[in-house]
Amino acid sequence: MRAEIIAVGSELLTPARVDTNSLWLTAKLNEIGVEVSQKSILSDDRDLLAAAVAGALSRAPLVLITGGLGPTEDDVTREAVAQAMHRRLLFDEAICAGIEAIFARRGRKMAEINRRQAFLVEGAAALDNPNGTAPGQWIDYPGGIVLLLPGPPQELKPMFEELCLPRLKERLPKAAIRTRFFRVAGMGESDVDALIAPIYKEYRNPVTTILAAAGDVQVHLRAQCQTEEEAEALVEELGAKIRERLGDRIYSLNGDPLENVVGNLLRERGATLAVAESCTAGLLGGRITEAAGASEYFLGGFQVYGKGMKARLLGLDEKLVEEAGVVSEAAAKAMADSARDRTGATYAISITGEAGPESSSPGIEPGTVWIGVAGPEGCEARMFKFPTGRARVRAFAVQTALNLLRLALK
Amino acid sequence: MRAEIIAVGSELLTPARVDTNSLWLTAKLNEIGVEVSQKSILSDDRDLLAAAVAGALSRAPLVLITGGLGPTEDDVTREAVAQAMHRRLLFDEAICAGIEAIFARRGRKMAEINRRQAFLVEGAAALDNPNGTAPGQWIDYPGGIVLLLPGPPQELKPMFEELCLPRLKERLPKAAIRTRFFRVAGMGESDVDALIAPIYKEYRNPVTTILAAAGDVQVHLRAQCQTEEEAEALVEELGAKIRERLGDRIYSLNGDPLENVVGNLLRERGATLAVAESCTAGLLGGRITEAAGASEYFLGGFQVYGKGMKARLLGLDEKLVEEAGVVSEAAAKAMADSARDRTGATYAISITGEAGPESSSPGIEPGTVWIGVAGPEGCEARMFKFPTGRARVRAFAVQTALNLLRLALK
Repeated sequence: MRAEIIAVGSELLTPARVDTNSLWLTAKLNEIGVEVSQKSILSDDRDLLAAAVAGALSRAPLVLITGGLGPTEDDVTREAVAQAMHRRLLFDEAICAGIEAIFARRGRKMAEINRRQAFLVEGAAALDNPNGTAPGQWIDYPGGIVLLLPGPPQELKPMFEELCLPRLKERLPKAAIRTRFFRVAGMGESDVDALIAPIYKEYRNPVTTILAAAGDVQVHLRAQCQTEEEAEALVEELGAKIRERLGDRIYSLNGDPLENVVGNLLRERGATLAVAESCTAGLLGGRITEAAGASEYFLGGFQVYGKGMKARLLGLDEKLVEEAGVVSEAAAKAMADSARDRTGATYAISITGEAGPESSSPGIEPGTVWIGVAGPEGCEARMFKFPTGRARVRAFAVQTALNLLRLALK
Repeated sequence: MRAEIIAVGSELLTPARVDTNSLWLTAKLNEIGVEVSQKSILSDDRDLLAAAVAGALSRAPLVLITGGLGPTEDDVTREAVAQAMHRRLLFDEAICAGIEAIFARRGRKMAEINRRQAFLVEGAAALDNPNGTAPGQWIDYPGGIVLLLPGPPQELKPMFEELCLPRLKERLPKAAIRTRFFRVAGMGESDVDALIAPIYKEYRNPVTTILAAAGDVQVHLRAQCQTEEEAEALVEELGAKIRERLGDRIYSLNGDPLENVVGNLLRERGATLAVAESCTAGLLGGRITEAAGASEYFLGGFQVYGKGMKARLLGLDEKLVEEAGVVSEAAAKAMADSARDRTGATYAISITGEAGPESSSPGIEPGTVWIGVAGPEGCEARMFKFPTGRARVRAFAVQTALNLLRLALK
């Protein structure tokens, strides 16, 4: 089943505000097998909102509208929905009395404008709101269901969870959802797609989605069936084929980020790690320690960014650095070896490169990065040419360094 | 003028993902006097997207569509826009050659599917994308303008800023807009608001917006008038009052990030900087070197994360560490002093704290962080209790450390 969510409120169209209700609602809907097929954010304009509601009703059997149920002139959701559904708004004495009682409990008199909150779309059932004044509304119509929910999360969440979810479950055709989430390092999005598209295109169910960030490609599978067993069998069938095709380029079978995967490998081996960072200046250490509990395996390292620091902090031979250059195989290897030596770690990773925008090493293009990995079996370094852009080069370098260590640990 | 933004991508309809591009675009559009009247988020479904684009074209003279320009079958934006506008898609040899060249520079061959990215909607002008493969598209039509922009923020932002904003400004009815962008460190959003709300509430023009991230509060002023002189006079009038109220809690009068402000202060003084990072493990060094040209003043430092590393890499007295604890004034000062000494830098910053989720130092709550600053005039350390959450504590620590150095340099 498909749902659309419409969030109402001019403040949600400013640079500072995110509609977080729809994220929470999406998670709850996904759990009962409902997909969100479209989200819209509209200002407090009755005609625009009515047009958007009418559009949503024509596309999806479940439409959730959040916000715009307050007492002021700006709160146009009730009017807009009535207009879109060609229904009247009816005043409800009992709801009005309930709102008056809420004010009375706080020792205040209900303002006249709050009467607006006691209007229901013709045919709607009121959804009680113990955490605010505006009731929600559940509206059945021949094509499906429309829900009007309050905007404040502390009102919306209990109302949806307690009053809407149980009724929705009863109404839904039984559907079960199963997912897989693989992550791939060391390949571009289009290369991953070229490899696995011939496989996943054989399936309309599961649905396959591929996403990419610097040096990280995510493959999401989602199967929807009548039973959990069928859905599980389908994601497992396609998942196994994709796993086989991508081999150890997949670093995570459950969506874990690379720093956690590497951390687990180190922990399993009782090994420790150190770093020596030039162009990344600490980003690799920062990334490794995003994982809580990283102190079990991450010791620390050296940020050797400025001139002379590779000699001063890591003891690199000044002549070597001068002859081979700071962005070189020799420098990368000496950095990793020295970091390993000086910290006493089992493994050490070094990164030295040109992040740009301009190169300070003659003959070395921005994007060129050497990465070294030193371990009990010796030290190796590899050169990479990453896509340019200072932030991107550094992000690629960190991701690639972690992936090289992962492969060394396997 | 009104604009609508359509974000394309099934991943944006999952519970975990927020469309942040539209927030950034909204801020940029607001600056040139364009209001966003509606936002939509759609899956990678060509027909649904085409219908949404057609709807947006009928309502707003400027429609921005982000995402869905990649090389895979899932990337349907080009096709959907062509369908909605009743135009053809035309293959562009020059764009294709450009994409091939990008792959060639990285020593790779372009995959066949990347040819998809070389199709333009009939009548579109390609928008060059130096940070990715897919060009954007600028499409004029009798009712207005449609822009197709890539989804990755690092591609979208420079493309919009450099290629779209200047052209949009030319096209807009002449309204003079003047802005101010102040940034404040060391205060929470609500504290800043409490201080300056009595001032800015006196003005409907300029409009004041306050945004906040970890340890960073942004104050945006925007005046819109018939002439530039009037707009400038208005933002300057309100800006001067706000500057006076906030004093040196404002670290930037032009929107520059804190690492650039600190970098400029160091550069002016011919001073250099080193770091010693425990719980941040390199994030401070990484942040300082986000500024291109940081090698003029940033030397490097020490990631002393694991047990014993403060003694081993920085020579801290093991007894001192044992008695005072690793999260202490004594440890923070010794770390800063030693980093300054061992690198020869003019200044050194140290960070040692408990990021959480659990505390490994008895009696020290997660969120507790000591920050030390050592310089020619001696060494001082201060304790902070940041809001919990591992990533948040570390982000606050980095921002606060930079701000302490800024105040020391003033």
